[in-house]
Amino acid sequence: MEFTAKQIAALLEGSIEGDEQAIVSKVSKIEEGEPGSLSFLANPKYTAYIYNTKASIVIVNKDFKAEKEVKSTLIRVEDAYTAFAKVLDAYKQKMQDKSGISDKASVAATAKIGKDVYIGDFVSIGEHTEIGDGVKIYPNSFIGDHARIGNRTQMMMGVKVYDSMQIGNDCTLHAGVVIGCDGFGFAPQADNNYKKVPQIGNVILEDNVEVGANTTIDRATLGSTIIRKGVKLDNLIQIAHNVDIGENTVIAAMVGIAGSTKIGRNCMIGAQAGIVGHITIANEVKIAAQAGVPNSIRKEGEIVIGSPAFDISKFKRSFIHFRNLPGIVERIKEVENKLKE
Amino acid sequence: MEFTAKQIAALLEGSIEGDEQAIVSKVSKIEEGEPGSLSFLANPKYTAYIYNTKASIVIVNKDFKAEKEVKSTLIRVEDAYTAFAKVLDAYKQKMQDKSGISDKASVAATAKIGKDVYIGDFVSIGEHTEIGDGVKIYPNSFIGDHARIGNRTQMMMGVKVYDSMQIGNDCTLHAGVVIGCDGFGFAPQADNNYKKVPQIGNVILEDNVEVGANTTIDRATLGSTIIRKGVKLDNLIQIAHNVDIGENTVIAAMVGIAGSTKIGRNCMIGAQAGIVGHITIANEVKIAAQAGVPNSIRKEGEIVIGSPAFDISKFKRSFIHFRNLPGIVERIKEVENKLKE
Amino acid sequence: MEFTAKQIAALLEGSIEGDEQAIVSKVSKIEEGEPGSLSFLANPKYTAYIYNTKASIVIVNKDFKAEKEVKSTLIRVEDAYTAFAKVLDAYKQKMQDKSGISDKASVAATAKIGKDVYIGDFVSIGEHTEIGDGVKIYPNSFIGDHARIGNRTQMMMGVKVYDSMQIGNDCTLHAGVVIGCDGFGFAPQADNNYKKVPQIGNVILEDNVEVGANTTIDRATLGSTIIRKGVKLDNLIQIAHNVDIGENTVIAAMVGIAGSTKIGRNCMIGAQAGIVGHITIANEVKIAAQAGVPNSIRKEGEIVIGSPAFDISKFKRSFIHFRNLPGIVERIKEVENKLKE
Repeated sequence: MEFTAKQIAALLEGSIEGDEQAIVSKVSKIEEGEPGSLSFLANPKYTAYIYNTKASIVIVNKDFKAEKEVKSTLIRVEDAYTAFAKVLDAYKQKMQDKSGISDKASVAATAKIGKDVYIGDFVSIGEHTEIGDGVKIYPNSFIGDHARIGNRTQMMMGVKVYDSMQIGNDCTLHAGVVIGCDGFGFAPQADNNYKKVPQIGNVILEDNVEVGANTTIDRATLGSTIIRKGVKLDNLIQIAHNVDIGENTVIAAMVGIAGSTKIGRNCMIGAQAGIVGHITIANEVKIAAQAGVPNSIRKEGEIVIGSPAFDISKFKRSFIHFRNLPGIVERIKEVENKLKE
Repeated sequence: MEFTAKQIAALLEGSIEGDEQAIVSKVSKIEEGEPGSLSFLANPKYTAYIYNTKASIVIVNKDFKAEKEVKSTLIRVEDAYTAFAKVLDAYKQKMQDKSGISDKASVAATAKIGKDVYIGDFVSIGEHTEIGDGVKIYPNSFIGDHARIGNRTQMMMGVKVYDSMQIGNDCTLHAGVVIGCDGFGFAPQADNNYKKVPQIGNVILEDNVEVGANTTIDRATLGSTIIRKGVKLDNLIQIAHNVDIGENTVIAAMVGIAGSTKIGRNCMIGAQAGIVGHITIANEVKIAAQAGVPNSIRKEGEIVIGSPAFDISKFKRSFIHFRNLPGIVERIKEVENKLKE
Repeated sequence: MEFTAKQIAALLEGSIEGDEQAIVSKVSKIEEGEPGSLSFLANPKYTAYIYNTKASIVIVNKDFKAEKEVKSTLIRVEDAYTAFAKVLDAYKQKMQDKSGISDKASVAATAKIGKDVYIGDFVSIGEHTEIGDGVKIYPNSFIGDHARIGNRTQMMMGVKVYDSMQIGNDCTLHAGVVIGCDGFGFAPQADNNYKKVPQIGNVILEDNVEVGANTTIDRATLGSTIIRKGVKLDNLIQIAHNVDIGENTVIAAMVGIAGSTKIGRNCMIGAQAGIVGHITIANEVKIAAQAGVPNSIRKEGEIVIGSPAFDISKFKRSFIHFRNLPGIVERIKEVENKLKE
């Protein structure tokens, strides 16, 4: 995609200083500007870069005063940072302007497909499934029978949604996401075998949920695994059956949450943390990366770390002493020696 | 799918109390019952819910005596819990009644396909591969050349099985599973480069193995990576080359097992645990979540925790003191002060 | 694939002792030899096995002297180990001799496709994307628009490469790999919602990079996430946006590296380790499995372990005392008791 300075200035209601036919096809940081790239200068700390940048166009604040020659074409706007974000949004949208239903897709006759959807090559959509308006489903994705996908939701390449799942509006599911695989439920038998407990519940993703690449969310045994409004999940996360995650909770990569655990809203969970099953985490709790949470956390806003996890300030004090254990043992030895004397 | 009370009673050989034309299309816990759902009451603790549940049909024990009005249609059976499980099995089976070979699949001319199989859209099956009777392969899955898939095995969406793999009877591979990717073997070279060690062994899954979504199992360098009868693997697990996992061992999500390690039978391994390469774990060992196992465990039934992992009861005692290290250091200080006096 | 002793001897310039029509169709360790398998004997420790192995053909050193009867056909070569590795390479190459463009693939009219490529069933290749010579793309893979794939690179089944990515020469991407999913960037809003920060950078894989199954690498917010020459990544790894990994660094399975972190060259990172964002790791650093690295490591060649991670020899000393904390507390008690007396 290519844009001229004139087009960008029109989008931003800015004024051009330089070549209004200057063309850009990508964006860059100002310090990494290249011919054909668009950049911006908002933070005064970066002002020095504007005199050497090779970016073809730079968005600057209205009141920016050049102290040396600037080779780039400038677009002056009220607030360069906000304007740049606006360009990024427009650019991103442009990158994702796929539309239409591929004749290489396989859509069941009983599926209901909304308006303005994109369904890519080699996508399967099952019987009685409903796809909302403006939905985009990228190649090699699969949606089972009796599923419901809300409006404007995007499913990137190779997403697999089992039958009977419910996905809200404005969600984004990244490549390789699996929604609705069986919960890990097996009943031990007398002969050390395990008998599978049928998993026939579903997964509900409410609106505005984002799910990172290759993350897996298990269907409930009965009822629903629920990911509430605005939850953001990073890549390679495992959410077990019957988990319930509260609104606007943010979970970093590689976190595992075991079955039937209920997480509050506005929580933040660091990467590679693990949370055992059948517990409750209060609202606004923060769990550090690699923590292992063995018990419910009842206090709102608590911050925990460690495996098993406990209060962060206490952990830090204990950890300082852990690092100094050889010194501590030395002190005990000295005391013992003195006592012998 | 819809069922009437009459149909369910027939399946369970139960007697109906209420509307034999009552229709259900899903199942629910009794406390979450909705119109159109089927529920059950087995545990007396939940008896109170039966008077308010909105479930259209509830399965109860023969001897259940209502003390207030019950609005749901009841089906009386010998054992409500077992009967409900039977309904779940039937329901699950009904959900998975796909059959036939899609004309959008790509099956090599030299592949041998059993009876009553399902091969979905966009599935590839390689040269000389044998697919057993009753196998179900869901859309977008791939099976390479010279592979063998046993009877009644299910491969969900987007499963990838490299060439020459052997998968037994009655296995379930969930969406996104990868069987037979190269082991991570590289020989360091003089110039800091690495030369790849060819990985030409295979993976053998014996009968009754379940593999969770997006789990990866590497092929052996030579010989076979072996997952024995009845092993259950959860989601996002990594099994490296030449690993051997004993019968009926159960492994929770996100566990990593490094190359050539041999795990005994009937072991239980908690989520996010890691086990180094080239060691042996005895039968019936339990490894706690997030443990890091650096050495062989020779003693059957041992339980370990921590990273590096050791005996759980010893770990717990040490961990209590870790949490109390500031107090311990305080006591040393006091002792030192007293000695100075 | 089948080979005769005569064909193998010709490849290795070796001499045959036994049946030159002996046929093998697989390779095995000498102790696991079966009829129809090819094995080798290089390490004298394994000599005893040659008298009982069922391998049809065994490659041995020129100077090997049998002390008992050997039933297998022998091929004598200068160096049995090197010769065997040569056979493995040939075998592996033979296994991967796919070629041609499937008529079930979907290749955009504007894509530029090199010579001698393999593009399998159900592969999508986007607009303006360039595919180098000798590239192999296995079934169900996806490459977006404006991407560039170097010569001889292999993408196994179900690999997903978002638009605008750049992948070098001689790379291998295993099944399920995701390159270029959005970085996990969200700006907190006043009402506890998060607004997505558009992620419009890309990922650059330089030459000779290997990426394990189901590993995910996020695109940069702006600029590039960079994986430099010769880097080897195992399965189920997460590389966040704007990370930069130096040449020939080797990373084991399930490692997570957070945003904007820069890793030096020739580093080794153990499985399940985590590295926080916005830090720098020096060259040749070794990070133990399950370590959690919270700060930059400036010293070349440092070895760290633990979560939070620090110097390995110090960690080991502290950990010995951790295991002995009950004993330490006992000693303090004794000292206190003596002082009371």
